[in-house]
Amino acid sequence: MESSKLEFEKAIQPLRTRIDQIDSQILNLLAQRQEQVEKVVNLKKKHHMPVYHPAREEDLISKLRAQAEKTGLDPDFMEDLYRVILRQSRVRQTNQMAHKGVRPDAKVLIVGGSGQMGAFFARLFIKSGYDVRQLNSRDWERAAELCKGIDVAIVSVPIDRTPEIIDKLAPFLEPHTILTDLTSIKALPMEKMLQAHKGPVVGLHPIFGPTSGSMDRQIIVVTPGREPETCQWLIDQFTLWGAVIVESTPEEHDSIMELVQALRHFATFSFGQFLHKRGTDLERSLEFSSPIYRLELGMVGRLFAQDGSLYSEIIFATKERLELLKEYIRSMSDHLEMLENADKQMFIEKFNKVAEWFGPFSEQAMRESTFLINKLTERF
Amino acid sequence: MESSKLEFEKAIQPLRTRIDQIDSQILNLLAQRQEQVEKVVNLKKKHHMPVYHPAREEDLISKLRAQAEKTGLDPDFMEDLYRVILRQSRVRQTNQMAHKGVRPDAKVLIVGGSGQMGAFFARLFIKSGYDVRQLNSRDWERAAELCKGIDVAIVSVPIDRTPEIIDKLAPFLEPHTILTDLTSIKALPMEKMLQAHKGPVVGLHPIFGPTSGSMDRQIIVVTPGREPETCQWLIDQFTLWGAVIVESTPEEHDSIMELVQALRHFATFSFGQFLHKRGTDLERSLEFSSPIYRLELGMVGRLFAQDGSLYSEIIFATKERLELLKEYIRSMSDHLEMLENADKQMFIEKFNKVAEWFGPFSEQAMRESTFLINKLTERF
Repeated sequence: MESSKLEFEKAIQPLRTRIDQIDSQILNLLAQRQEQVEKVVNLKKKHHMPVYHPAREEDLISKLRAQAEKTGLDPDFMEDLYRVILRQSRVRQTNQMAHKGVRPDAKVLIVGGSGQMGAFFARLFIKSGYDVRQLNSRDWERAAELCKGIDVAIVSVPIDRTPEIIDKLAPFLEPHTILTDLTSIKALPMEKMLQAHKGPVVGLHPIFGPTSGSMDRQIIVVTPGREPETCQWLIDQFTLWGAVIVESTPEEHDSIMELVQALRHFATFSFGQFLHKRGTDLERSLEFSSPIYRLELGMVGRLFAQDGSLYSEIIFATKERLELLKEYIRSMSDHLEMLENADKQMFIEKFNKVAEWFGPFSEQAMRESTFLINKLTERF
Repeated sequence: MESSKLEFEKAIQPLRTRIDQIDSQILNLLAQRQEQVEKVVNLKKKHHMPVYHPAREEDLISKLRAQAEKTGLDPDFMEDLYRVILRQSRVRQTNQMAHKGVRPDAKVLIVGGSGQMGAFFARLFIKSGYDVRQLNSRDWERAAELCKGIDVAIVSVPIDRTPEIIDKLAPFLEPHTILTDLTSIKALPMEKMLQAHKGPVVGLHPIFGPTSGSMDRQIIVVTPGREPETCQWLIDQFTLWGAVIVESTPEEHDSIMELVQALRHFATFSFGQFLHKRGTDLERSLEFSSPIYRLELGMVGRLFAQDGSLYSEIIFATKERLELLKEYIRSMSDHLEMLENADKQMFIEKFNKVAEWFGPFSEQAMRESTFLINKLTERF
């Protein structure tokens, strides 16, 4: 080793040791912090207080930003760091609080509990001390017995089987039982449930996959049907598990979901299909990629890591969706002429009109996606 | 206040105070860490060592994961946290090291230095002690004077003006001067540069926006043209600024960029245009959105927060691109029949074929995007 390099190694060693010491101290403090937070959770449990305290979080962030500035740390960096710490703390708290049942004496029946989403809900109810029963395809002979005395029946079967299962189930239900479903369309199941069952009815659409692990900050759309007061405890239970409740009508829900789910997934599917058709060299193209393209291609790849039949259910759920997708394809063809004539000016005009319409959302999207791109650059 | 709540407030106060104390201690340790890292940087500067030491980073992460496990902290959480800390540290180091010039006696001419990208490069060269001159549209009368004795001329003008500017510039260049450009297409400018200038030529495509702030971990595609040894110091300078260099031919570069830039941007543009045409209620639809949709819509919004004419340049850059986009639109129309017949089975077959082709990338994409979705959930 040349002498300069030796000198460098000698000089840098104590600095590295000091950094390692500091890191150990930080780690120990984080463990202490976690201990204190656990004590807070136990207190909250004892006093039936909600876990998540957004105002205290924002307060803490503001204080830390100010402190950071004083000590010469970048406040954005400090905020980034504490968002990670607070999330971890929130998830742990929510997981621990999850045991609490709003009405733990209630009996819950999950129809289709062997599916992923049904199993996810069953786990949560069981953890919170509910009496949970499952009715799967082989259990219909015992349906009368299973449905006896239950407080809520949750239908969790594929979209195209939902109407027939509702019809099959309803005659076994008692008038006080809440009937609900988890289907990602709402108009048709709601109509069916209200028709087939005379008791309380509410529609649910959990907007997340069963692999999420927890309900922390996940959205559930609720479409009230009949006797909303009777159904309220169920909604309260979801809130306690950390879910964010959005109330809607079946019609509004479906028209928004056409875009949010069907159109978006179809557009992603077509893009992936075209890349495949062209025989793109994915790996090499990623080497050339800015984080944003990596992210966009990742969104496409993500779709194809999942179950094709699930997406076919979503895309082919209703006639309205198919009409929407056809309209989308036709609207693409409207651009052909612009491309044929290499009409840049027309592109810019169209672009500006859409930009105006997006308005402040684009700025926000820019901010959010830049944040994520930085995360991506830092991690991969 | 009822007595139970009072009791709760009394019990929680000391815990919160303790947590605040711990947070202050963490903050102070982070400031100390930053100080130590700065000493490391100064040492590295003195000994001309590279800033970024990936092996040491991965070592540190592994050690901290093991330590975390022992103290009852979640190792993933610890890793998340330290990725944020290490990135901050890396960016600071890179920013400080940026001053170092590989050949600080060299003279740099930026043609189009008043544009954003030109200005970005000019700033970096100036910071590293280079003699930087700019040649803007009003300076052509002084071109001979400005080009005298320069070591590298960087053409940074809009794509459609690049060929003519190269032709205009070349006669003023001395034979030893490196001629290069920053255009996002490479075949045409490379051909032009090699024709017009007899000295060293290299093509560059920085795959990032001028607003990135730093070159840390950003990709630059390099297409060698003539006298690569003479051009090497320039590439080394980019590496020292933190860039990742990908070498390619102009043809390969352009064919990948057709997909990475033109097709992706066009697909995003058409999607945004369709949402606009439908008069979608963006705000309400976001309330119904899973983080993944929020992210996807954010990618669309992001496009429209930027300059339409920039995107028109990218999309309309070459005839090949326009052909590709027309092919894409036609391939969309191929799906019409499947939708018309509500042919789920065909969808699933197509889906599975693409999924197979994506192969392991989809799994990786799933992992990466899940990581980002968690980031998004934690932040917004």
